[in-house]
Amino acid sequence: MSDVRVIIQRDSEREERVVTTGTTAAELFAGERTIVAARVAGELKDLAYEVKDGETVESVEISSKDGLDILRHSTAHVMAQAVQELFPEAKLGIGPPVKDGFYYDFDVARPFTPEDLKAVEKKMQEIQKRGQRFSRRVVTDEAAREELADEPYKLELIGIKGAASSDDGADVEVGGGELTIYDNLDAKTGDLCWKDLCRGPHLPTTRNIPAFKLMRNAAAYWRGSEKNPMLQRIYGTAWPTKDELKAHLEFLAEAEKRDHRKLGSELDLFSIPEQIGSGLAVFHPKGGIVRRVMEDYSRRRHEEEGYEFVYTPHATKGKLFETSGHLDWYADGMYPPMQLDEGVDYYLKPMNCPMHNLIFDARGRSYRELPLRLFEFGTVYRYEKSGVVHGLTRARGFTQDDAHIYCTREQMAEELDKTLTFVLGLLRDYGLTDFYLELSTKDPEKFVGSDEVWEEATETLRQVAEKQGLPLVPDPGGAAFYGPKISVQTKDAIGRTWQMSTVQLDFNLPERFDLEYTGPDGTKQRPVMIHRALFGSIERFFAVLLEHYAGAFPAWLAPVQAVGIPIGDAHIDYLHKFAAEAKKKGLRVEVDSSSDRMQKKIRNAQKQKVPFMVIAGDEDMAAGAVSFRYRDGSQENGIPLDEAIAKIAKVVEERVQN
Amino acid sequence: MSDVRVIIQRDSEREERVVTTGTTAAELFAGERTIVAARVAGELKDLAYEVKDGETVESVEISSKDGLDILRHSTAHVMAQAVQELFPEAKLGIGPPVKDGFYYDFDVARPFTPEDLKAVEKKMQEIQKRGQRFSRRVVTDEAAREELADEPYKLELIGIKGAASSDDGADVEVGGGELTIYDNLDAKTGDLCWKDLCRGPHLPTTRNIPAFKLMRNAAAYWRGSEKNPMLQRIYGTAWPTKDELKAHLEFLAEAEKRDHRKLGSELDLFSIPEQIGSGLAVFHPKGGIVRRVMEDYSRRRHEEEGYEFVYTPHATKGKLFETSGHLDWYADGMYPPMQLDEGVDYYLKPMNCPMHNLIFDARGRSYRELPLRLFEFGTVYRYEKSGVVHGLTRARGFTQDDAHIYCTREQMAEELDKTLTFVLGLLRDYGLTDFYLELSTKDPEKFVGSDEVWEEATETLRQVAEKQGLPLVPDPGGAAFYGPKISVQTKDAIGRTWQMSTVQLDFNLPERFDLEYTGPDGTKQRPVMIHRALFGSIERFFAVLLEHYAGAFPAWLAPVQAVGIPIGDAHIDYLHKFAAEAKKKGLRVEVDSSSDRMQKKIRNAQKQKVPFMVIAGDEDMAAGAVSFRYRDGSQENGIPLDEAIAKIAKVVEERVQN
Repeated sequence: MSDVRVIIQRDSEREERVVTTGTTAAELFAGERTIVAARVAGELKDLAYEVKDGETVESVEISSKDGLDILRHSTAHVMAQAVQELFPEAKLGIGPPVKDGFYYDFDVARPFTPEDLKAVEKKMQEIQKRGQRFSRRVVTDEAAREELADEPYKLELIGIKGAASSDDGADVEVGGGELTIYDNLDAKTGDLCWKDLCRGPHLPTTRNIPAFKLMRNAAAYWRGSEKNPMLQRIYGTAWPTKDELKAHLEFLAEAEKRDHRKLGSELDLFSIPEQIGSGLAVFHPKGGIVRRVMEDYSRRRHEEEGYEFVYTPHATKGKLFETSGHLDWYADGMYPPMQLDEGVDYYLKPMNCPMHNLIFDARGRSYRELPLRLFEFGTVYRYEKSGVVHGLTRARGFTQDDAHIYCTREQMAEELDKTLTFVLGLLRDYGLTDFYLELSTKDPEKFVGSDEVWEEATETLRQVAEKQGLPLVPDPGGAAFYGPKISVQTKDAIGRTWQMSTVQLDFNLPERFDLEYTGPDGTKQRPVMIHRALFGSIERFFAVLLEHYAGAFPAWLAPVQAVGIPIGDAHIDYLHKFAAEAKKKGLRVEVDSSSDRMQKKIRNAQKQKVPFMVIAGDEDMAAGAVSFRYRDGSQENGIPLDEAIAKIAKVVEERVQN
Repeated sequence: MSDVRVIIQRDSEREERVVTTGTTAAELFAGERTIVAARVAGELKDLAYEVKDGETVESVEISSKDGLDILRHSTAHVMAQAVQELFPEAKLGIGPPVKDGFYYDFDVARPFTPEDLKAVEKKMQEIQKRGQRFSRRVVTDEAAREELADEPYKLELIGIKGAASSDDGADVEVGGGELTIYDNLDAKTGDLCWKDLCRGPHLPTTRNIPAFKLMRNAAAYWRGSEKNPMLQRIYGTAWPTKDELKAHLEFLAEAEKRDHRKLGSELDLFSIPEQIGSGLAVFHPKGGIVRRVMEDYSRRRHEEEGYEFVYTPHATKGKLFETSGHLDWYADGMYPPMQLDEGVDYYLKPMNCPMHNLIFDARGRSYRELPLRLFEFGTVYRYEKSGVVHGLTRARGFTQDDAHIYCTREQMAEELDKTLTFVLGLLRDYGLTDFYLELSTKDPEKFVGSDEVWEEATETLRQVAEKQGLPLVPDPGGAAFYGPKISVQTKDAIGRTWQMSTVQLDFNLPERFDLEYTGPDGTKQRPVMIHRALFGSIERFFAVLLEHYAGAFPAWLAPVQAVGIPIGDAHIDYLHKFAAEAKKKGLRVEVDSSSDRMQKKIRNAQKQKVPFMVIAGDEDMAAGAVSFRYRDGSQENGIPLDEAIAKIAKVVEERVQN
């Protein structure tokens, strides 16, 4: 046994140690229960890995991104074992970790029932308690084929060796390089309990799984293709502590209450009719009001900032997207062509920029006209696979609040600065307050334009971003080939991050469209082009706000701002008069004159999340007043009519977050 | 010679006469120079027609619809003769009368030049003076084939005998029944000068052509198909008097000045980029302002009238148009499908109604919610043949100000009344004042729904229309199969008629979508559905207003409402301050601070048809005033600043037709 010299790395702390040959990572980190794996030369290893001389061995904490993936991946194995113990005929698909959890696909005779899931979960708890060891074993392709002769999907993967990916974009578990099988071994006897073709790594034992829960099941095509057999997928979640699991489940319950698809139906805001197709929503009158108020305010602010409004069609000859290059690099995101006039391909537009370029180019431009800011509420159509379409947040048709700014290179810095300030101010007006910025910079392998321009532009973006005093996260190499970008990320009321606005420089399209303006010296110059969208997609922003506010929109956005609730029938006319006066001030007021009792009317208004319930009884009438009841249940009595209207109008006018 | 007893009919005047066998219509109407043909048993006849015993012979005046067609058709023959005299190798296509004139197609080696047209016109004047007789002759197919062996296109028509129609929809001249040739015979010798396969009838002689002019030439495919040879078409016009020709030419010159495509470019309002495709316009910033003001005002008025705004997508699964029936009866007007998700056909919507029906049907409806008025600025896409697409007035994509009203049968009358009053009021607000109504009633061969409902609805529409006190033109049998309709026809500033708004009942879609509401008694009822669009198409209405105003929009619609024109550089800042104040009142004001001289600035503002030129010099500045100059050249001096702004604001606010 010779000496092995290793460096142990925990965060920024380095420790050199000499150990004997055959020492495992587990031994290096003995007693450190939160360390579940090691990273050696950039590769993740089981704690059972035997360290070698000269290696640096990094700890992987269970609560790190990699640690969580390993935890969840191991839990997926436990679930698969449980399923096969309960349903011996089940064949294995793949079972990767995903955001907040994991899944595993099975080929079974019938979909799992809620009772099945309970039984599987119970069996998993059993396996967890057994403390089975995860044990890695290298195999040849031939040996693997023999061992897994009963698992047809695994056999298919052996041939591919990690080239395949699931329909969620998660990697399958068989890696490049060595082919490995993980055995689940009995804690005492070491007998084989279960095994899976898998790249690993895994936790040391099933006992290292602190907290997990099965969530739901769904159908999924093998390897994401509709041509393949349909498998049954079970989703689960796993966490480093029981508290974290609990917090996650509470978060999910809260998110579900706020699900914009659910609220959209409950509040009669929009629907996505099956006859039209997924990802294509219709806005009902109440949703139409919210959307229109959102748009009108945005439009007013854009006008104040010097934007000019244009309109462009939704369909165009393919020629335009040849000029722009979209048919080269974006065709997969586009709807298929429609052939008109015996042989000319027309496409739905996935982006508005090429059409704005044609407006810029419709006549000669002078430097005096710059910056020229063309704005449109432009509805675009993008092909998303049916599996990833989700309500309004990932749709197949949506409306961008899309502007393109054409300016001189000298104007670029000021224009970017103004744009970012404007963007953030407007998002704040809509009630979002928690932001960070992301700066996507050049991918050295793939870019157009000169290094010098990229550098200047990137530096400008960085300065402009830093000036905002917000956290700035670098995204090196993350820029599109045509220019660097700032994106605004925002956190909603329950802490979820949404990518909102983007401010994107483009060195490509002005070239491709040969855009020019005449400079002060009479020479032709190429303008700089900035793409920017605030909401990104109005539909998506609508959904984000709906979830952020859990449907309780502030009064200025609420479809119904106040509802009159009479204590008795004698007070209906009085409230109608109130409503008529309020409508004159542009307020959206209704009166509930149904035959429901007052308490029911209040409950209905609460369900509809109306900001102001305006209650009137004999006393109010006698005093020429009304009472306010708010969404939080608090009440304010005896407000004179004029004052009541003025109060609501003020809350609306000032966009108070009430 | 036996006696022949005939009735001569002139308008409502009947005269019985006994003449000898062989008497011609010309002899019956001898001396009546304005009578150019006769109608016998519903068929048009040459004046050379020999009347038969018992026939009623109606006069056909040259200025009647049929008379004008005959005049223009005969002029087309004269033109074709002139062309073949000048270009003996020219082969004849067809030459029908069309609106205001005629054309003839020729197969020639090269397109006609402007000089060619002058020469042809001169030759036509010669032929007119020759006074050649038009002479009808019945021939067999075989004889015609022999006679016209040199005219390949005519040979083709002999086989078809009138079944073919040209690409303008005009019938070709060979009729069903007898095959006839018209000979042009020398006035003195009776020698054959020229001949054409033709159904007739014709004027007696070329001398009966009072006034004509050739207009332009164009290429046209033989029988309208791109698969056929390209012919050269010459268009001409012909009129009963020289004064009418002159008036027509003046009208055309005025219409050309007002052509929305020309003004659209001169005023930088919109363009139809070749890269996007014909019929698909982009609105530039200035056109965007006009359109947006049009839309905003319409939206406001609709809200006041109780309409609720919705949004629907532009694409949908074909399934929706199977439900609505559009794929059965409207497929030719639709863009071809796009296949998504391996086999599902998606279509661009040609109409919004099916989507509004889905919104109606998104949840249960109660009678208390009716009338429910769903409104949308819905952009639709319709396939129009490239030959008929025309600027914004006949486009392939356009935005309807489209509403669908769902009401009970009892509410129908009041709702139709309100709708028509609203429609006419709104059109008047936009500056149109000269209307008539057209009532399209049931085609007994083709309708859905019960006779009783049609009768009630038609009677209601009639009463509603009559109440408006406008001329009501019946259009019997002109209704669509699904319901009767009122359409509003309006005359523009130069007397052209445009079909604007339609109010259309629909007994079909509520059935097809199984739309229901719960009545007061708890039973399910079928709502009545009314389609209505005011502008029809916003783009087309924009074009109509642009032509109506010849680009000089009233101030409330004008993209720039006032332009400041400094007498010298010293007055620029003063006007900028004025502009800033005016902008605070929501006015669209610019200052011309270019290096042009004042007179040039005034000319520019006049070219741009800006309603208010606001001029300032030393005197104005000293007095804290400005001077107004109007588009008609009149001027008003020394208006105090506040007053000037208030004056413009008032004209805008009140939508004065200034």
